[in-house]
Amino acid sequence: MTAKNLPFEQSEYDMRMVRVRNAMSEKSLDAIIISDPSNMAWLTGYDGWSFYVHQCVVLPMQGNPLCFVRAQDRNGAIRTVWMPDDDCHGYDEKLVQNLPQHPMQELAAVMHERGIAAGRIGVEMDNYWYSAQAHVELVNGLHSATLVDATGLVNWQRAIKSTTEISYMKIAGQIVTRMHSRIRDLIEPGLPKNEMVAEIYHSGCLGIDGHGGDYPAIVPLLPSGSDASAPHLTWNDDPFKSGESTFFEIAGCYKRYHCPTSRTIFLGTPPRRFLDVEKAVVEGIDAGLEQARAGNQCQEIAHAFCSILEKRTGIKKESRCGYPVGISYPPDWGERTMSLRPGDETILQVGMTFHFIPAVWQDDWGMEITESFVITEHGAETLADVPRALFVKP
Amino acid sequence: MTAKNLPFEQSEYDMRMVRVRNAMSEKSLDAIIISDPSNMAWLTGYDGWSFYVHQCVVLPMQGNPLCFVRAQDRNGAIRTVWMPDDDCHGYDEKLVQNLPQHPMQELAAVMHERGIAAGRIGVEMDNYWYSAQAHVELVNGLHSATLVDATGLVNWQRAIKSTTEISYMKIAGQIVTRMHSRIRDLIEPGLPKNEMVAEIYHSGCLGIDGHGGDYPAIVPLLPSGSDASAPHLTWNDDPFKSGESTFFEIAGCYKRYHCPTSRTIFLGTPPRRFLDVEKAVVEGIDAGLEQARAGNQCQEIAHAFCSILEKRTGIKKESRCGYPVGISYPPDWGERTMSLRPGDETILQVGMTFHFIPAVWQDDWGMEITESFVITEHGAETLADVPRALFVKP
Repeated sequence: MTAKNLPFEQSEYDMRMVRVRNAMSEKSLDAIIISDPSNMAWLTGYDGWSFYVHQCVVLPMQGNPLCFVRAQDRNGAIRTVWMPDDDCHGYDEKLVQNLPQHPMQELAAVMHERGIAAGRIGVEMDNYWYSAQAHVELVNGLHSATLVDATGLVNWQRAIKSTTEISYMKIAGQIVTRMHSRIRDLIEPGLPKNEMVAEIYHSGCLGIDGHGGDYPAIVPLLPSGSDASAPHLTWNDDPFKSGESTFFEIAGCYKRYHCPTSRTIFLGTPPRRFLDVEKAVVEGIDAGLEQARAGNQCQEIAHAFCSILEKRTGIKKESRCGYPVGISYPPDWGERTMSLRPGDETILQVGMTFHFIPAVWQDDWGMEITESFVITEHGAETLADVPRALFVKP
Repeated sequence: MTAKNLPFEQSEYDMRMVRVRNAMSEKSLDAIIISDPSNMAWLTGYDGWSFYVHQCVVLPMQGNPLCFVRAQDRNGAIRTVWMPDDDCHGYDEKLVQNLPQHPMQELAAVMHERGIAAGRIGVEMDNYWYSAQAHVELVNGLHSATLVDATGLVNWQRAIKSTTEISYMKIAGQIVTRMHSRIRDLIEPGLPKNEMVAEIYHSGCLGIDGHGGDYPAIVPLLPSGSDASAPHLTWNDDPFKSGESTFFEIAGCYKRYHCPTSRTIFLGTPPRRFLDVEKAVVEGIDAGLEQARAGNQCQEIAHAFCSILEKRTGIKKESRCGYPVGISYPPDWGERTMSLRPGDETILQVGMTFHFIPAVWQDDWGMEITESFVITEHGAETLADVPRALFVKP
């Protein structure tokens, strides 16, 4: 076997399998096909930028998971998963992007060979990485099985983080703290935005104290002025301008674990409404974090923030105020389970980690001041340490 | 309307619609639902990191496309698409990651309202961004329509690039040329890989001659030593070592257009087999590029390369030797249509652009020397200008 250098002890992977199998039992599943790379990595350690072709992990109720990747990626699987090489299957290269041939045809055959092709088999119906065609192929190929929607089943098991996971997220928090400090130092009117992004990446990859930075699941988002009403614009080579604000939505990342944190910077003298909203947002974050206690519900954090925002500024927030974070691959660093929004009654528990993003996007401007936090025995603990304010550079 | 700054003239978008509609006609489609962000951007200009939630463009046979995004992203759509604001629909935030509620339910309603919910409607069945559940929702919601597989329909229309597209790819080529030069300057035993990645990103984002760099659809891949047998490993904070080779698979990116180019660097004195393979690969690339002429078939490039590789080294290449490139969003910079591999009889045409990646991955090492090129009237023209060799740093 190739030397491996996994980010977690075997006992932690074992515990994760137990959690997933308990959830599978509740749904009377005999196996689950996991297409989400974040779920694959969390369960087996599999790591690599190979999710642009079909791949998955199959976990039956007994025995090891099967890591099913393209032939070319089998060496990557062998190097990164905790299972022995026999549990890494590389499918025929001819099946890569070569319709009507499809990798799921070979997966069905392999599952038959391994005796895990019958019964109730979960699939992640609403996951990016499980295409409509993949489902058609598996329905055809696994004719003695019933495919059952198991979207989010594994994601939910990721919600409560281990001590090691939290330690990685705290390193990510230190990385993003340094990234924001670099941004504040460098920003000035006339600096092209792409040059700022060069520095953001540089700082994020350097990491901190010998802990190298990994790639965040989302690229830096930094719209300025009225473009800041559009949360997901990336960047171009226009310069920052005096009289405009820019929000920086970025994350530190360490061993695939994320700490997203956003801040907004105003170049020049901010108008009254900016300062008013800043004050309300900061007060609302305090109120939200106060509610981020084990035993409370997700929605209580949102209620606390939104009521202060509305009372102080008249702004009604329509979008959610946050989501869980942890291990992730593109395109999203959120876990896609809970949301910090009205109606989400999930009970908060110690070890859960969230990106609290009570952003304000108006028609011609926007402000993001956000915090990632972990719920401890004593309430919320933030993971980064960036001054919680609208930063003004006159 | 908000000021727009689109990367192409309206006439180019118009021409693209004509191409797509011609292809739709051949399949007797009344409309097509386009979920792939690269296809969405190519057709409408839509740009933003919002593909982690459901979104799409709907193109009927007559009239403007509809850009269907999350409410929060409507401002981004308004800023980046060529259509008027009325053709940008923002769906209810409550539908975001909140199953069993699903954005495709609202899409079906909107298509009914716009009178484009009947007939034969194409969907991208095997696209990441069209999940199995999205399909279930549309089958239910578009009860008077027949959903037809149209995977790749738009991708195929992207194959032949315009003059402007090629000019962007040439800028991307200059960017990746500079990135490789930076790598060659900096690499040395002891340098942690994440620090090298910091410099790669820095250089890529800086761009060239005032053309700011954009984010490539794939992060830098740089496995070393025996890990180079695994093409899709990313990086960690281990140092480069003497006596090991590393390949750098990276791309320059400009306005979402890519020029991928890989090179391999050996620190120390390379063993004989490296030099033998290098010689064969370089000779094979020459032979492949010689075949990259309008009128030839995709497979002829692969045949030319593979036969030289096998004759000189005994290595039989199993995986494909390349794929088309151009505009792209994560997770892939390939276009997922043609492949440079045996059996692909697609006729090469002037204006097609490929990443020719005749990589050699063996069980305990790997070598990548690659070229992106455009097919011109006079044969293949490479887009970057990096010395085509195994780079050795003693």
